[in-house]
Amino acid sequence: METGRSSESPEVPKKGKSKTPRKPKDSILKQKSPAEFFADNKNIAGFDNPGKCLYTTVRELVENALDSAESISELPVVEITIEEIGRGKFNSMIGLADHERRDEALYDDFETAKAREKRLAKEARVLEIQAKNVALGKKVKDPAATKAVKGREASYYRVTCKDNGRGMPHDDIPNMFGRVLSGTKYGLKQTRGKFGLGAKMALIWSKMSTGLPIEITSSMNSQNYTSFCRLDIDIHKNVPHIHIHEKGENKERWHGAEIQIVIEGNWTTYRSKILHYMRQMAVITPYAQFLFQFVSDSPEKNVTIRFTRRTDIMPSVPLETKYHPSAVDILLIKRLITETSKQTLLQFLQHEFVNIGKSHAERLIGEMGPDFSPKMSVKSLTPQQIVRIHQLFRQAKFDDPSGDILSPAGEYNLRLGIIKELHPDMVATFSGSAQVFEGHPFIVEAGVSIGGKDVKQGLNVFRFANRIPLLFEQGADVVTRTAMKRINWNSYKINQTQDKIGVFVSIVSTKIPFKGTGKEYIGDDISEIASAVKLFSNAAISSNQKL
Amino acid sequence: METGRSSESPEVPKKGKSKTPRKPKDSILKQKSPAEFFADNKNIAGFDNPGKCLYTTVRELVENALDSAESISELPVVEITIEEIGRGKFNSMIGLADHERRDEALYDDFETAKAREKRLAKEARVLEIQAKNVALGKKVKDPAATKAVKGREASYYRVTCKDNGRGMPHDDIPNMFGRVLSGTKYGLKQTRGKFGLGAKMALIWSKMSTGLPIEITSSMNSQNYTSFCRLDIDIHKNVPHIHIHEKGENKERWHGAEIQIVIEGNWTTYRSKILHYMRQMAVITPYAQFLFQFVSDSPEKNVTIRFTRRTDIMPSVPLETKYHPSAVDILLIKRLITETSKQTLLQFLQHEFVNIGKSHAERLIGEMGPDFSPKMSVKSLTPQQIVRIHQLFRQAKFDDPSGDILSPAGEYNLRLGIIKELHPDMVATFSGSAQVFEGHPFIVEAGVSIGGKDVKQGLNVFRFANRIPLLFEQGADVVTRTAMKRINWNSYKINQTQDKIGVFVSIVSTKIPFKGTGKEYIGDDISEIASAVKLFSNAAISSNQKL
Repeated sequence: METGRSSESPEVPKKGKSKTPRKPKDSILKQKSPAEFFADNKNIAGFDNPGKCLYTTVRELVENALDSAESISELPVVEITIEEIGRGKFNSMIGLADHERRDEALYDDFETAKAREKRLAKEARVLEIQAKNVALGKKVKDPAATKAVKGREASYYRVTCKDNGRGMPHDDIPNMFGRVLSGTKYGLKQTRGKFGLGAKMALIWSKMSTGLPIEITSSMNSQNYTSFCRLDIDIHKNVPHIHIHEKGENKERWHGAEIQIVIEGNWTTYRSKILHYMRQMAVITPYAQFLFQFVSDSPEKNVTIRFTRRTDIMPSVPLETKYHPSAVDILLIKRLITETSKQTLLQFLQHEFVNIGKSHAERLIGEMGPDFSPKMSVKSLTPQQIVRIHQLFRQAKFDDPSGDILSPAGEYNLRLGIIKELHPDMVATFSGSAQVFEGHPFIVEAGVSIGGKDVKQGLNVFRFANRIPLLFEQGADVVTRTAMKRINWNSYKINQTQDKIGVFVSIVSTKIPFKGTGKEYIGDDISEIASAVKLFSNAAISSNQKL
Repeated sequence: METGRSSESPEVPKKGKSKTPRKPKDSILKQKSPAEFFADNKNIAGFDNPGKCLYTTVRELVENALDSAESISELPVVEITIEEIGRGKFNSMIGLADHERRDEALYDDFETAKAREKRLAKEARVLEIQAKNVALGKKVKDPAATKAVKGREASYYRVTCKDNGRGMPHDDIPNMFGRVLSGTKYGLKQTRGKFGLGAKMALIWSKMSTGLPIEITSSMNSQNYTSFCRLDIDIHKNVPHIHIHEKGENKERWHGAEIQIVIEGNWTTYRSKILHYMRQMAVITPYAQFLFQFVSDSPEKNVTIRFTRRTDIMPSVPLETKYHPSAVDILLIKRLITETSKQTLLQFLQHEFVNIGKSHAERLIGEMGPDFSPKMSVKSLTPQQIVRIHQLFRQAKFDDPSGDILSPAGEYNLRLGIIKELHPDMVATFSGSAQVFEGHPFIVEAGVSIGGKDVKQGLNVFRFANRIPLLFEQGADVVTRTAMKRINWNSYKINQTQDKIGVFVSIVSTKIPFKGTGKEYIGDDISEIASAVKLFSNAAISSNQKL
């Protein structure tokens, strides 16, 4: 039965087909640069709002710093400073005179004399009521806290990150920062980066929010000069716009990089996320030394935290590997054919994939059909033949890829990290052997701790993917769900709500199977990983219980 | 207290600094094309796995079809067909001989004679037990259902979408499909598209999964020819690779487009999502006629659903608008300066933004400071001066942008859509006036229904953003949360768990404040929207109660 509101039942509007016929402008086909795309869709890379932008900028710089030091087997020393810059200071920095307001009525916070009178009267009334309540011993809310302050005024921050890494080749610096989709991380290996956008997004954000360039100082091992580069990015052309690019003396034979960028941010809303990030990074990277500083004109807001190094043992660097035959799509096979230096199909199969030996390759070619032969030119394969190879790769059996090229934190390091940052009463860790998901090897390491300093009651989940902390979208993550629902804490005589429980799970892989576009969590539906997480967490706890 | 497991307490590994010192390859700076980036990160655009790829392909084609018909004020007629293609058929389509297996031991599903014997014995045992259980009247599980079939074999689908829209200019067709980040949707207006990637991602996916080109047939109003184009995309160069591009006769004076693409997919897992999507689209677009068909070799799997048109009243097309001064960043101001045809600062302010009249512009310029004047050349503004303008835009007060350029579904249409697809016992709708969030106008419309056909008990939430259904990440969405937690259903004598309740909320805006990277939900923290959703839902229900 349809019983519409009689007064508003579907009445046909009086006008014709379209309520108000409007002529849309004729559409013109335009081409956007990748930099413009990411400026418009910056949330894809974690630049959602000023607060998150500050967080993600710190993250990208810290992770680049670690990558850089590790790539030359140097124990990382990373110093990160966030300096709050008031508007007056910001304006004087950019050479803009600070302006007194003259035409008050132009401003958003302007009130007419009448409105002001009204507000003051209201405030007086509120204070009166409060005074009464205080006299009666009632709890009083801060009236300011109930009003949402419309914070349209921007807050500016200078973020500086200094490392002792490999530095960058002088000539590459402009493109490494000022050209989106340019990078070195595009081979197949375990990497910290999620999209390979890194510091470029921070530069785009500085361009949007402050218009100020990024400054890079860098020197490579045994270079007798330092490189200095001040640049921004031409968003429309996606090319670096260089202000200064020069060499200086390197008397101290320093190597590493120092990046400085001024952006809009919001320390108040993202303070705790940034500090959590630093602490979790210290847990998973106990061989690094971090100095984190927040500096402002209000000394009471300042923060200095030193995360000390507790070991000299670094995980080996992840190695670049070839693709597993079950992890490639048609497009990728075509790309490998374009890029290979091999001549024949046999050589191609044997050398451009893992786990295909010569005799195996010969058998596979035999199976492909009569129009294939080991000696045929791989570059002459037809699209149909490539589809055939792809189909066979899907159906055929191959040995699992090896986990040797991965770089897990290591049980020793995970354990040390937990102990040094949480000071738990008990800690147990477990490291699994390599497993495989869709042709990519992965390793799961787990730790469980009880008690500790600055640990809240109940479950504290620490999630790491390729040795970076994951802080967002925790609820849907396989680790959180496993810890909350699939581990019978009671059976270990652990009280899930009363005890201070730390659950630490680190997953490394050549391809982390992130779910969700933000790459902030691993889906609960990948049984290979869910069971490894459960198994190793249980193994960690039960080994602990045997004490 | 640290009580590590004695057997595995932090023992320093024996080797040096790095467990196994490896030399990483020297990194080479590479440039990726935007098409390559999206091929590598296709989940950003909703192409997560074969099933989701099929869903998103359908979505993109349907939404393009609606946009196209609406842009010429034509009542949309959209026909979408998914044809399942078995491997044999697929291979004969691409001219690949179907291959018999010869070397059985190569395959993933190969079993040795011994393994086969073992399996058969086990299966016999299971059947025996089952037979016993059946005899005893026990419930029996299908043994096949408990085994997860490792479905590595691909399923292929031909997706065809035909519309009666404006068609495409003959010469633009290749770039509209074969060049990522090329498009017409880049002005500021309400659009259905989320990233402007549309059918291009479907083409990239076809390239990855089947290697087959896309086929487009199109004709524009009063063209005496039809365009036919078969193309794929050169991912590395991000340019279309044209196979055929020719004109044919258009005797019937047809206008519209027909797109055909063959991709890997998974109908089984995404069937219900695709059907939900179509039904919700029919609710919000009651002036369109949809024919959805799924066709396969197994007739029992086939689906034909016709969503009939119930009204000839179309919402007016959304109009392109200028930016509101409080919605621009520094980069955007710079872009507007580059693109403007105006000479002076005064003209620029007056004509490139909404809600700045001439005298207002003059006052703003006066407030900017002594180095600004109405007649100064806008193209000569220094970066500092642009920052000053941006700061003033942040602080100054402007009238809210008008909602006139938006195109809400309309209360009449929302109501009709609900009635025609759900056949509820009661329905009530409410349409709000335009509001504003961060300089962008938005309009919220809400509907509530009780009872109906194919409606499950409890809350059924239908969410729409710019008139497309949002099906994923429902839990965190402002509409779901409002319906579940902030509406006191009891007070309306509605039982939240027993009654069949439909909650419909449609939001349109020049910028939907999506949260999360996938643009699948609207955050619960934007109070402007949360309160509008609550208010209008309540208004809808209570108007209903007054009957």
